[in-house]
Amino acid sequence: MKARIFVTLKDGVLDPQGQAIEGALAALGFDGVGAVRQGKVFDIELADPVDGEARLKAMCEKLLANTVIEDYEIELS
Amino acid sequence: MKARIFVTLKDGVLDPQGQAIEGALAALGFDGVGAVRQGKVFDIELADPVDGEARLKAMCEKLLANTVIEDYEIELS
Repeated sequence: MKARIFVTLKDGVLDPQGQAIEGALAALGFDGVGAVRQGKVFDIELADPVDGEARLKAMCEKLLANTVIEDYEIELS
Repeated sequence: MKARIFVTLKDGVLDPQGQAIEGALAALGFDGVGAVRQGKVFDIELADPVDGEARLKAMCEKLLANTVIEDYEIELS
């Protein structure tokens, strides 16, 4: 079983990396680029699909995301 | 127009960060976790949807991805 997990900063949390990318895109001549937010994506393979989503959620809570400032989404495939 | 861009390491490119996460998950007691690969995700807002996909592709080629070792996917919403 494969899963993709997105970890993104919560709304309202400052994202200096995203702002730097915004500035760099403007400097390269890309106009009309609004907010850019950067996050992380994890592609994980689970040997055993039983309780997969619950286990992935626990992984996010314990290790992959800092839930004070980050949100996570789990996509199973 | 909103877009989400995924930038992930190509297959065969070593991912030490992913391996560290794999080790940490095992140390936390999560069994049966196979390969973990880490990548980046960018959420971008474009003011003007005209030619959006082509412009996003150009942004990936020029700034967001290192196409020697990374692949990118564009998801429009």
